[in-house]
Amino acid sequence: MEGLFKAHEDTVVKDLGGGTTRRILAWNDQLMSVEVAFETGAVGADHTHPHTQLSYVLAGRFRYTVSGKSVEMKPGDSIVVPGNAVHGTVCLEAGTLLDVFTPAREDFLK
Amino acid sequence: MEGLFKAHEDTVVKDLGGGTTRRILAWNDQLMSVEVAFETGAVGADHTHPHTQLSYVLAGRFRYTVSGKSVEMKPGDSIVVPGNAVHGTVCLEAGTLLDVFTPAREDFLK
Repeated sequence: MEGLFKAHEDTVVKDLGGGTTRRILAWNDQLMSVEVAFETGAVGADHTHPHTQLSYVLAGRFRYTVSGKSVEMKPGDSIVVPGNAVHGTVCLEAGTLLDVFTPAREDFLK
Repeated sequence: MEGLFKAHEDTVVKDLGGGTTRRILAWNDQLMSVEVAFETGAVGADHTHPHTQLSYVLAGRFRYTVSGKSVEMKPGDSIVVPGNAVHGTVCLEAGTLLDVFTPAREDFLK
């Protein structure tokens, strides 16, 4: 099961700056899971990528925008971002998103 | 954003029997997210499907088996199940898995 199981304590915290950090969790070529932690007020700037993304709120509150439409998200809420859709978020209360991508974000491994 | 955002309180609980329930969260054709809640001792029997799956422990403890190899999982731990790999779980302490599939599990929509 090499590489397919990931204990949380074995993940590495990467500081993305601006009050955000990322941990890469379990992944293979088809699916990659990451936790992104935000301080209150931290921003995930609008961006696009060809990968389809799912975001699930583990903790905190977020204003999340996809293709110009915004929703407020709380723990347990989830959203799909189609490939190439412009999306971004603002953290309203410190917390963490679980983001899952298909296929894997190879750019995160560099 | 029709169908792409799902507030947790708008999801529907489906009783799967044997101490397990499922909620379908946000999904599109490429990614589907579901929460599966287990009572202590409840079993997700060994099974296969062609979809690649990621399981993330939201709460509780689980013994999770993929292709005959088992690990014990706690909150924050994650695992990828390759397509067609035999997998199953036993809940050691009541809790919830977040499962994400690619592509969507159309059989869950019937």
